[in-house]
Amino acid sequence: LIGVRGKVNAAKAASTKMLTLTTESRRKALATIAEAIWKDREQIIAANQQDLREAEILLQKKMYSEALVKRLKLDEKKLRGVVKMINSVMSRDDPLGRTEYAVELDEDMELYRISCPIGVIGVIFESRPDVLAQTAFLCLMSGNAVIMKGGSEAKKTNEALYNVIDSASIDADIPVGWIQLLDSRTEVNELLKLDDSVDLLVPRGSNSFVKYIQDNTRIAVLGHSEGVCQIYVDRSADLAKAVGICYDAKVQYPAVCNAVDTLLVHREFAENFLPMIMDRYVEAGVEVRGCSRTVELLGSSVKAATEDDWGAEYLDLIVSVKIVNNLDEAIEYVNEFGSHHTDAIIAEDSSTALRFLEEVDSANIFWNASTRFSDGYRYGLGAEVGISTGKIHARGPTGLEGLTTYKYYLVGSGNIVKDYVDAAKKFTHRNLSKSWSDVKKDL
Amino acid sequence: LIGVRGKVNAAKAASTKMLTLTTESRRKALATIAEAIWKDREQIIAANQQDLREAEILLQKKMYSEALVKRLKLDEKKLRGVVKMINSVMSRDDPLGRTEYAVELDEDMELYRISCPIGVIGVIFESRPDVLAQTAFLCLMSGNAVIMKGGSEAKKTNEALYNVIDSASIDADIPVGWIQLLDSRTEVNELLKLDDSVDLLVPRGSNSFVKYIQDNTRIAVLGHSEGVCQIYVDRSADLAKAVGICYDAKVQYPAVCNAVDTLLVHREFAENFLPMIMDRYVEAGVEVRGCSRTVELLGSSVKAATEDDWGAEYLDLIVSVKIVNNLDEAIEYVNEFGSHHTDAIIAEDSSTALRFLEEVDSANIFWNASTRFSDGYRYGLGAEVGISTGKIHARGPTGLEGLTTYKYYLVGSGNIVKDYVDAAKKFTHRNLSKSWSDVKKDL
Repeated sequence: LIGVRGKVNAAKAASTKMLTLTTESRRKALATIAEAIWKDREQIIAANQQDLREAEILLQKKMYSEALVKRLKLDEKKLRGVVKMINSVMSRDDPLGRTEYAVELDEDMELYRISCPIGVIGVIFESRPDVLAQTAFLCLMSGNAVIMKGGSEAKKTNEALYNVIDSASIDADIPVGWIQLLDSRTEVNELLKLDDSVDLLVPRGSNSFVKYIQDNTRIAVLGHSEGVCQIYVDRSADLAKAVGICYDAKVQYPAVCNAVDTLLVHREFAENFLPMIMDRYVEAGVEVRGCSRTVELLGSSVKAATEDDWGAEYLDLIVSVKIVNNLDEAIEYVNEFGSHHTDAIIAEDSSTALRFLEEVDSANIFWNASTRFSDGYRYGLGAEVGISTGKIHARGPTGLEGLTTYKYYLVGSGNIVKDYVDAAKKFTHRNLSKSWSDVKKDL
Repeated sequence: LIGVRGKVNAAKAASTKMLTLTTESRRKALATIAEAIWKDREQIIAANQQDLREAEILLQKKMYSEALVKRLKLDEKKLRGVVKMINSVMSRDDPLGRTEYAVELDEDMELYRISCPIGVIGVIFESRPDVLAQTAFLCLMSGNAVIMKGGSEAKKTNEALYNVIDSASIDADIPVGWIQLLDSRTEVNELLKLDDSVDLLVPRGSNSFVKYIQDNTRIAVLGHSEGVCQIYVDRSADLAKAVGICYDAKVQYPAVCNAVDTLLVHREFAENFLPMIMDRYVEAGVEVRGCSRTVELLGSSVKAATEDDWGAEYLDLIVSVKIVNNLDEAIEYVNEFGSHHTDAIIAEDSSTALRFLEEVDSANIFWNASTRFSDGYRYGLGAEVGISTGKIHARGPTGLEGLTTYKYYLVGSGNIVKDYVDAAKKFTHRNLSKSWSDVKKDL
């Protein structure tokens, strides 16, 4: 079998064999892969240079955005980050074999819920090629086989990375076929039909791209789509914190999903705050688009926002500003126009902050911190396969834990249900303090 | 707005208001509902009698199966079970507001992962009307609004139960509209389109029904479909345990998904075991369909199985028997023909049992116990919305925890990402022992 079915069958077969890999063997394989990436870095960077040259041409033709080209670049510094990421994944507790629930059902019958791999995971992402590496490490450490499709603009970089990881994992005795790379959009459409073998799809991209995937498959989808992020600056905000955070959240790296898009400013705080942040933004080349009250306050240095600005994801040095009358208006705006990704409140008043945290329906809600902290590495998860904008299975930055499921093991001694239905016996439902690995040791 | 959109909008509005319900108010509401169900039991049973009369007619016309009619019946004994179920749900720890992860990101910045409701859940199920009640209790306790569609054969019973629950929850100050009942299959098709407001669908039914739902919606689907359950009787099995379990798993209640469908018997154990279990089965009126070796061994009392028997869900007093050569054959059979629901091994040899537990890819894997224990109440989960046959979000019996998601709260003091990228500051990533409720108390 060739084509996508062949790749998926190979991944499926590998995933079954991966069930017997120990923690140690998965960690060792990651170390081998890290060494190989570092050893072959010149080759990977050369492939990336080829991709970049083509992208620059398309940028000049206005077919690619500057943000896209920025995300595409993979230099030695970024590769060092990739290798560091492996160490961070390796050093985490093994996400597999964890006892999540242990209960005595009766004196002679025990139930254990044990974390295990999901199986075969399909990941479809855009330009950033370090996503390929990060995803591969997370899937290997969590015992899953993975089928990936990167952006066409990073084709050569992705192939170079894939080849290095694939041969290094063969050296490390990881079942052949556990990692697969798809070549084209057509292959993705084929993949969507293989719900008999693929357990989970992780599409990363625009809202409409994630919806397209959801519309065309019966495989479970963990969508990682747009980050339309808001910061609400309350009247109780500390001025220095507000300016520092709103500047960082926009300027530090504008091309990413957790950069802020819209500032919502309490009307009693606008007069002090807006001129100050405006000066900083102008200095950094940020284009500010204001609501009518903002334009009135700041004058002609501010462009007037249009309806399209509310709920827009800029991925660039653009920010929209809206003056609101109170906390309720801010919460309502965030829940209506945001993408439930990451939103922040700047406030000293704790009851105000608490209401914002509890009533905003987003994966990540920050109090007096930059939205840019929304990230698996920064959260201490080791790395991330993306930031889930769905609510099901995994929400927000998704690391090793988000790539596992669980099984229930029931260990009995001949127990039958009739005894409990007839009330000859009664369930004890006593929590057990021992783990499944304790049980295994005693067998 | 009327119709399905009106019901969904009402549920969505209620779900937002439900965020502020305390543990105590949700428990109190459940107590009020329990009282109302018991008070109005005659009315509910009368409605059920109407449904039963119609069902009996269709049974005589062979349009309904006996299993369906059995599942439809709701008498005083079953209603007492329903009320008991509420107490079991009420007495569980609150699934909301739990701190699942707490980490210090830096000395002045902390991250908390807090469990919260999913939002609006759609549950589509078949004949058993107690499912409506159980689902309503679980959704209310987990802070979710719910939209339900039961089987048309239980229409009057479901309406009666719904009306009692709806008015009792208004008495208990639960936001109006949190529970909705759909009338028809057409309304279900409408519901599938409303992915802007419905967060999760839980279809319970046949494999093809779940696939139909998956094919026609972009809402996340938690499928609860067929239980094709196997028991592997190893050569190291204890004879008495094997007979007791295989009998219970088939006879105790054959109309349910966790009843056994196929026995896989090690060839060295077949001669002792099969005649004994056969006697018990014949006594109970179980039809046995055997593989050729089984027929050879047991003679004409056994029907010959056809290809359709392997992987069939009987929901009736029928069982298929296959003699296998070894453990590997049994594991391979289970992973290929089963529905990854519940499978058991009867064995005294622990290394054999361990391999079965680890290599079978099912939600519930039992060692020396009846498959009939696969159930949220028996597992100590309080109750269940169903038994998930998917691997994503929730697997196996799904109780309160499976109806929650989480949010990340980051509490900072003006922190910006630039400091960490420039290495002016370093993450501490120290686990915190305090919970979010501790933090709230100190605010």
